[in-house]
Amino acid sequence: MITKRSLFLGGALIVPAVVASAQTVDETLALFQNAFDMIWLVLAAALVFLMQAGFAMVETGLTRAKNASNIIMKNLMDFSAGALAYWAVGWALMYGESAGGVVGSSGFFLNYPAGTEMFVIYRDWMFQVVFAATAATIVSGAMAERTQFKGYLIYSVVISAVIYPVSGHWIWSGGWLSEMGFHDFAGSTVVHSVGAWAALVGAFFLGARRGKYIRLNGSVTVKAIQGHNMPLAALGVFILWFGWYGFNAGSTLSGTDLDIAHVAVTTTLAAAAGAIAAMATSWGWFGKPDPSMSLNGALAGLVGITAGTWVIAPGASILVGLIAGVLVVLAVELIDKVLHIDDPVGAVSVHGIAGAWGTIAVGIFGDLEKIGSGLTRGGQIGVQALGVLAVFAWVVVTSAILFGILKAAGVLRVSDGEEQMGLDISEHGTEAYSGFQIFSNL
Amino acid sequence: MITKRSLFLGGALIVPAVVASAQTVDETLALFQNAFDMIWLVLAAALVFLMQAGFAMVETGLTRAKNASNIIMKNLMDFSAGALAYWAVGWALMYGESAGGVVGSSGFFLNYPAGTEMFVIYRDWMFQVVFAATAATIVSGAMAERTQFKGYLIYSVVISAVIYPVSGHWIWSGGWLSEMGFHDFAGSTVVHSVGAWAALVGAFFLGARRGKYIRLNGSVTVKAIQGHNMPLAALGVFILWFGWYGFNAGSTLSGTDLDIAHVAVTTTLAAAAGAIAAMATSWGWFGKPDPSMSLNGALAGLVGITAGTWVIAPGASILVGLIAGVLVVLAVELIDKVLHIDDPVGAVSVHGIAGAWGTIAVGIFGDLEKIGSGLTRGGQIGVQALGVLAVFAWVVVTSAILFGILKAAGVLRVSDGEEQMGLDISEHGTEAYSGFQIFSNL
Amino acid sequence: MITKRSLFLGGALIVPAVVASAQTVDETLALFQNAFDMIWLVLAAALVFLMQAGFAMVETGLTRAKNASNIIMKNLMDFSAGALAYWAVGWALMYGESAGGVVGSSGFFLNYPAGTEMFVIYRDWMFQVVFAATAATIVSGAMAERTQFKGYLIYSVVISAVIYPVSGHWIWSGGWLSEMGFHDFAGSTVVHSVGAWAALVGAFFLGARRGKYIRLNGSVTVKAIQGHNMPLAALGVFILWFGWYGFNAGSTLSGTDLDIAHVAVTTTLAAAAGAIAAMATSWGWFGKPDPSMSLNGALAGLVGITAGTWVIAPGASILVGLIAGVLVVLAVELIDKVLHIDDPVGAVSVHGIAGAWGTIAVGIFGDLEKIGSGLTRGGQIGVQALGVLAVFAWVVVTSAILFGILKAAGVLRVSDGEEQMGLDISEHGTEAYSGFQIFSNL
Repeated sequence: MITKRSLFLGGALIVPAVVASAQTVDETLALFQNAFDMIWLVLAAALVFLMQAGFAMVETGLTRAKNASNIIMKNLMDFSAGALAYWAVGWALMYGESAGGVVGSSGFFLNYPAGTEMFVIYRDWMFQVVFAATAATIVSGAMAERTQFKGYLIYSVVISAVIYPVSGHWIWSGGWLSEMGFHDFAGSTVVHSVGAWAALVGAFFLGARRGKYIRLNGSVTVKAIQGHNMPLAALGVFILWFGWYGFNAGSTLSGTDLDIAHVAVTTTLAAAAGAIAAMATSWGWFGKPDPSMSLNGALAGLVGITAGTWVIAPGASILVGLIAGVLVVLAVELIDKVLHIDDPVGAVSVHGIAGAWGTIAVGIFGDLEKIGSGLTRGGQIGVQALGVLAVFAWVVVTSAILFGILKAAGVLRVSDGEEQMGLDISEHGTEAYSGFQIFSNL
Repeated sequence: MITKRSLFLGGALIVPAVVASAQTVDETLALFQNAFDMIWLVLAAALVFLMQAGFAMVETGLTRAKNASNIIMKNLMDFSAGALAYWAVGWALMYGESAGGVVGSSGFFLNYPAGTEMFVIYRDWMFQVVFAATAATIVSGAMAERTQFKGYLIYSVVISAVIYPVSGHWIWSGGWLSEMGFHDFAGSTVVHSVGAWAALVGAFFLGARRGKYIRLNGSVTVKAIQGHNMPLAALGVFILWFGWYGFNAGSTLSGTDLDIAHVAVTTTLAAAAGAIAAMATSWGWFGKPDPSMSLNGALAGLVGITAGTWVIAPGASILVGLIAGVLVVLAVELIDKVLHIDDPVGAVSVHGIAGAWGTIAVGIFGDLEKIGSGLTRGGQIGVQALGVLAVFAWVVVTSAILFGILKAAGVLRVSDGEEQMGLDISEHGTEAYSGFQIFSNL
Repeated sequence: MITKRSLFLGGALIVPAVVASAQTVDETLALFQNAFDMIWLVLAAALVFLMQAGFAMVETGLTRAKNASNIIMKNLMDFSAGALAYWAVGWALMYGESAGGVVGSSGFFLNYPAGTEMFVIYRDWMFQVVFAATAATIVSGAMAERTQFKGYLIYSVVISAVIYPVSGHWIWSGGWLSEMGFHDFAGSTVVHSVGAWAALVGAFFLGARRGKYIRLNGSVTVKAIQGHNMPLAALGVFILWFGWYGFNAGSTLSGTDLDIAHVAVTTTLAAAAGAIAAMATSWGWFGKPDPSMSLNGALAGLVGITAGTWVIAPGASILVGLIAGVLVVLAVELIDKVLHIDDPVGAVSVHGIAGAWGTIAVGIFGDLEKIGSGLTRGGQIGVQALGVLAVFAWVVVTSAILFGILKAAGVLRVSDGEEQMGLDISEHGTEAYSGFQIFSNL
């Protein structure tokens, strides 16, 4: 039998079949256009998929050794359960036929009428599922070290299946915010803020880790709980940065869009500026350049430029990154020291605050012609702010319902004893670092 | 001198030379077709190469700290020695002119007659060498923590040079199984089962690690020997999953095949389903969701879908993954608790059992028209089963000879003292984690 | 509003706009040529970016736990500061209009006259900035565990902004070495040697780590200071090897260059040969196959083939790698045991010695017709040697000035107490492995 594989070396590809066949030049060009988009989106999707490894390493590295297996389980499972949920429901709610600009309503289980060009559906689903998974995984960092695994699975599925897709529909599928001219190229708001606001609500409902805030005689002592593996956290940031080239540049959605390089350049510069700004801010404030702040600064720069990466010039992208890097340090300190909300990895600051800033920055620095909304600069800033607020409201309300139910059902937080023992043992009956001598005073 | 690099910025690429030149449209289209295949296969090969890092991290993470340097040395060397062996011999046996459908016989040392389009050879060799290396590296996991480094080098070369290429020829180079209509798109059997069956034989000849099975008064106590670094193991699984997009989608062999997305989608869904099924199975059976089982479940889903990724629909790919995830837990327990064969990382279960299942699943769920063998569904299932058995027989017999000779020559297993001390010290005179306090009761 | 994202699923891409529009076939082909180059260079740049993670893991793994956070901070910051420096100054000096073949002089801050096709500039800058960052990051390994963070930031910026771009201009931007026919395809000299010679000078000015060379009664005892995490070091090497496919194959600069596979093959074979040669050399010399030597051997093979990857045949690439692998072991021993220069990770040997060898090897093994310089073999070897020496002289002189000033200003080396305490605590107020029991006798 002649198979594809057996043709492989037969020289058939030297005089490519497609050209040698009776296809016309126009048909061949159309195929090539589709091929560009196909390999570009699938490779970009693979890069974004790898961000799951990045998140897993960052979250593991910035928390304690006794919860490391639990964290990697959560990261594995939010993608796995999230992918099935997005296949069954999420995709349809996000990209199905719009019901009044509010929510999609077709394509459940990737079910389409006969005659649909399924390669387009598969290609687009592949590129979108990795974004949905990113939103879900952001939440795990803020809720680390004290959430029940069972509760985690439930809320991951709900976020991937419902919460993320609905606001996504508003913006990326011709919904009402899109109609108003709101611009979020690769998801500062659509992806990162959604994850972050859910994380904020989740951390609030959960409460802080034991020993994090010690209340005594009316005053609160804030304890730092150090992460256990900075090299892994750094590896995670490098992997995330790498994956972001798929996340942002892939969002051109076409392999023949010559703005791909523009996107890659602004992504690079904003990340670099974010890292430097956070390092400098921590240096000035705390007296030493702080590694975890600097790592979060790079991520904040990336999150910040994500909305405007296509419409903001390289010079301005540095500004966006610098401000994101400063903001992330301020936000981490504010949320921890003033609000006393315990976000072990700074997820709310990195993805929420920098995401909101980046979304507004589109209005401030973006090329209005490229945005193409027809709005004035003031109008664009207004619409961007409106979008930030609308998504904030949507996610806070739905997350509050979600986490409220989980809390009431008693599946949100582990017991004190389990937390002290560590979730690796209590939830999974295993250790992350068997044989290593590890101590803990918390 | 005008060099490529110095032209780089001269604008020459803005009006691309190829189009500006006297080339005809047809010549340009033929070049573009070749370019699509070239960048697609080279990028896919790079992704598959990175799977070496994935295997290294999984195997290191799931074994003990005292053998970590040894394991990474083995992973580095099976690729390095394997690549040279595949260059000299393996490629020729696999893809050379067929001698009766049994083995290839030309192209040793990539030596080809003048006039051969070498870019096709180089492209195809590049994509294939990383598959050969994958087969070889699978073995190292099952034989971890007690194999002599010298013996390891020898058998890695033999697998890459002979064992893998011959059965590969049968299936991917127009050999007798291919002629019968056997379908294995990206290598559930060609790559994964070959590695796994060799691993099974190797683990059998080697015997278990000291203290793994304690025989007392006729009964056997099975001890669990925990891995030392779950975050690394998880990182490895994420990297493998990432690389699998190159492994499976790259196996379209052409950058203009619009089924690339179909492959990426089924790969994603099966992996997700495998992780969930293994988690659920371990949860139900052992009372807690087990991280290493869940990680292996994702891999089992990936191995399972590899044969049918191109011909199985997304919905059915979830079934393939779910069953693979259940099977891997059962197989790990069976091999350990009943057969008392010591496979430290579960390689035989992940790559062998899930690989065999995935190969059969092609017959059960595959689109017969796409498979194109002209067989009935029953016939296809039969041929798939025959292929599984034929490859099993080939690998078991040749591996038994290979490991038998190595054992007789005394280069297969380290001494008891060396094993207890750890292979890092005894084989390489080094420690993996200098300065860390590590203890061990084994 | 119709946005790109909302068009995404509308089927518009099925009949691609570009073809359906009034564009002529020639315009479409020109666009496609640009698209090939765009996605090829941006993806290759992303792969090269990930090499930052590789360097960070290698350097962290091969040094002590007490300096791990410091090393990852340096790796993060040399890319971040270096990218901004290369945007502001370095790019202009390297690829700006040539002032007499010595240095570029336009394009500062990516400022270009109206009408410039900016997508070409952005694409090329993106591919180049990751090379500049590689040169800078090489230095950090040789200067690890005793350099002030402040001094590090300064010299990183100077290397990325001035030292690297100037010699780069000579070779890759039509400068005087290029005019003479010097060939360095992907940067054995342009990138790796530049980093290595700066590292050599830096290590010399810094002096050795405390306790490394103990002088007593006129004789010197050399102590080995073991790295703390071999799995991370190995992971780093695998990531670097992966990234090298972008580094070398991307240096074709065009996505339609069918020599991409040739480059990938020679890169693979040389790396494999380097690993084997270094393993064998260490085995023969020290009695055991040494993991860190073997890892460095793979890198030496990669560095060695980088200059000639496009013009050297696969068979000869194995020779280049083998010799690089032997040389790296000899060089590490020589620099440590004889010269008593303390290079903790072997960066000078890997990037400098193997880089010089690879550059000369272009003359010895390279296809003269492909090189296209019109020189005889002897002449080519001579020009290659001249290039090695010229770049050596340029870097040594400028680095000596740079490090001399930093030393005089008292910002080069940390105090003895800080060094003993570890740079994580003294420079950053943090620990890399909080909770782990770590001891040290140094």
